[in-house]
Amino acid sequence: MSNPLSAFDLVQLRQRRSVKWAEYGPEVLPVWVAEMDTPLAEPVAAALTAAIGRGDTGYAKPGGLLEAFAGFAERRYGWRADPAGMRLVPDVMTGIVEALGQVTAQGDAVVVNSPGYPPFFYWLERIGREVVRSPGLDLDRLERDFAAGAKAYLLCNPHNPTGRVYTAEQLRAVAGLADRYGVRVVVDEIHAPLTYPGERHVPFATIDAESAARSITLVSASKAWNLAGLKAALAVPGPQARAEVAAIHEEVSEGAGLFGVIASEAAFTQGEPWLDALLTGLDENRRLLARLLAEHVPAVGYEVPQATYLAWLDCRGLGIEGDPAELFLERGEVALSPGPRYGVPGFARFNFATAPERVTEAVLRMAKALTDR
Amino acid sequence: MSNPLSAFDLVQLRQRRSVKWAEYGPEVLPVWVAEMDTPLAEPVAAALTAAIGRGDTGYAKPGGLLEAFAGFAERRYGWRADPAGMRLVPDVMTGIVEALGQVTAQGDAVVVNSPGYPPFFYWLERIGREVVRSPGLDLDRLERDFAAGAKAYLLCNPHNPTGRVYTAEQLRAVAGLADRYGVRVVVDEIHAPLTYPGERHVPFATIDAESAARSITLVSASKAWNLAGLKAALAVPGPQARAEVAAIHEEVSEGAGLFGVIASEAAFTQGEPWLDALLTGLDENRRLLARLLAEHVPAVGYEVPQATYLAWLDCRGLGIEGDPAELFLERGEVALSPGPRYGVPGFARFNFATAPERVTEAVLRMAKALTDR
Ligand SMILES: Cc1ncc(COP(=O)(O)O)c(C=O)c1O
Ligand SMILES: Cc1ncc(COP(=O)(O)O)c(C=O)c1O
Repeated sequence: MSNPLSAFDLVQLRQRRSVKWAEYGPEVLPVWVAEMDTPLAEPVAAALTAAIGRGDTGYAKPGGLLEAFAGFAERRYGWRADPAGMRLVPDVMTGIVEALGQVTAQGDAVVVNSPGYPPFFYWLERIGREVVRSPGLDLDRLERDFAAGAKAYLLCNPHNPTGRVYTAEQLRAVAGLADRYGVRVVVDEIHAPLTYPGERHVPFATIDAESAARSITLVSASKAWNLAGLKAALAVPGPQARAEVAAIHEEVSEGAGLFGVIASEAAFTQGEPWLDALLTGLDENRRLLARLLAEHVPAVGYEVPQATYLAWLDCRGLGIEGDPAELFLERGEVALSPGPRYGVPGFARFNFATAPERVTEAVLRMAKALTDR
Repeated sequence: MSNPLSAFDLVQLRQRRSVKWAEYGPEVLPVWVAEMDTPLAEPVAAALTAAIGRGDTGYAKPGGLLEAFAGFAERRYGWRADPAGMRLVPDVMTGIVEALGQVTAQGDAVVVNSPGYPPFFYWLERIGREVVRSPGLDLDRLERDFAAGAKAYLLCNPHNPTGRVYTAEQLRAVAGLADRYGVRVVVDEIHAPLTYPGERHVPFATIDAESAARSITLVSASKAWNLAGLKAALAVPGPQARAEVAAIHEEVSEGAGLFGVIASEAAFTQGEPWLDALLTGLDENRRLLARLLAEHVPAVGYEVPQATYLAWLDCRGLGIEGDPAELFLERGEVALSPGPRYGVPGFARFNFATAPERVTEAVLRMAKALTDR
């Protein structure tokens, strides 16, 4: 299968209506929000085309999606998740809100790693949870935060924006702490299908611990097959969290998108060849980016991610006052995601899910922005 | 244009994945949830097919949707709504929650007419509002409820499930009461495009009153073009509610579905010929249903709706103990929506957005259920 990242040219991409391409004018090269510049996987496109033909655009029902994910998780990670306990939700963020709504109460403290996906902070505050920002995956710090009375921990694995994949050992240590302090773990594994060959994604639910059995994991095909705009995700309970996931109200599930369900089912059942071709292309890009940064903006810090297509760039050595992404946008006409929104100033997030020549062009624009100051 | 209600046969419809067709086995004829058995309008199908070709499935941005609705509202209702103030939301229900979140506080009383769309009751309770159920559109009762301290009124016009279209005079009276008691009005006009020829939908926002200027209206293409599973709606402020609509958080808008945006824009700009053909078919069905009920189940009360494809059937004369919809399902293998969920026992809601022969078949099944008791 050819590299899906190279299928579309700029003229085609600029016709898109999605946020990544529609937010800025044609002078800007967008490498910000987590969308990919790929065509749809063929089985996904076929399933959606058939749904259009059926006029099948009414309210969502999970249908075969739960089994489809269970099959994928078993083949891909050796995780045997019981489809009977899973619930459809509109997206991972909503699933996190619902899961935390079940396992915590108003005013409870929830630990979130920083940097972290910005909507985590907005939504947790909105539902009246106290957000405890815990840097990195620092076990000592995590223990202190748990000991201080946190009721839940929102674990993101693989991690956005750093691209870290946590090892079984790290996850066992996390689970041990959660067991000791009675902390409930809600796990965001949206990026898991994008774990690179040679790395291993360990679902938190497969750890042998009470807190893993009581965990709720949110999964979705939306990142790996670029389906965020179609609105479907799943809440997957550990064996001891089934009642809480079952208590997620029907009205919430009915807020999911039917095309998200149909597309995700096709992705999980027939989308692995496409995913593997994608990962081959992304693997080349993550290395290409390392070479390009070293050559053109060597003061930028970059740890090659173990999963996903996001590069968390340490721009603190560039001597930029304020937000680096703002400088890159204004002087270089390249749109990165601003680090401060993830809770860490001095960083910027670079999305390399695009053709290699556009990765190159984006880095050249960053370099230009720095030269032109 | 041919009648879109007759385009699909049962074999085709039973392949659908949406809730209406997937909930029950093949022995049941579904006339419950508000989905239609039509193909997509051609411009909608074309826009979605093009989006599949572009791989355009990332996060939603409203693009031309706001202007598209403004144009439709002006042509159709003479309502000049300013696109600059509108906000994209995932669906009408979420828009109502956000609007009431802006104009009321925890614990405030919100008046909702009964019968009413069941999720209203769930969501208002969930966000900590006290639901005051006010029967029908009874102005004296409404005044008492307003005078008792309600902070907001959730007006549904045209009304689900009764199919009533409120006149300008009625709306002026409502607005007068809201002005007098300082009650904020949030208006659900999701069914407005389905107003029958000969009736006139008056947008509440066009009433000359302070409460209309301060109203927030929720609109969507999802009922009239059957797009509920694609997830897009708009919050439209009156001129004095712009700040509150602007305060709806960006994260909420980003929860909308991109295919919902693309489909709705096509519907509002190019979907009127299809809508008119649909209304011709629905108009025949609403009369057909009257004849069928009179012939086969004459004890059922039915006021022909002035808008939408929902018939609110008064089954209190049938001597059924418990929920009539349950009896029709169990003995007649026809699925109606249970009246008790709308707040009124003894009623059932019949969805006639299907081919005339299936309307007939559904009524015959209802009659059979009553005979077989
Ligand atoms: C870690 C993480 N969680 C959640 C999301 C959002 O997913 P959804 O659109 O399903 O809410 C993202 C999106 O990029 C993400 O990176
Ligand atoms: C009156 C009314 N409001 C809201 C809705 C739900 O709309 P949405 O799916 O956009 O939330 C419906 C659905 O039938 C409805 O009848």
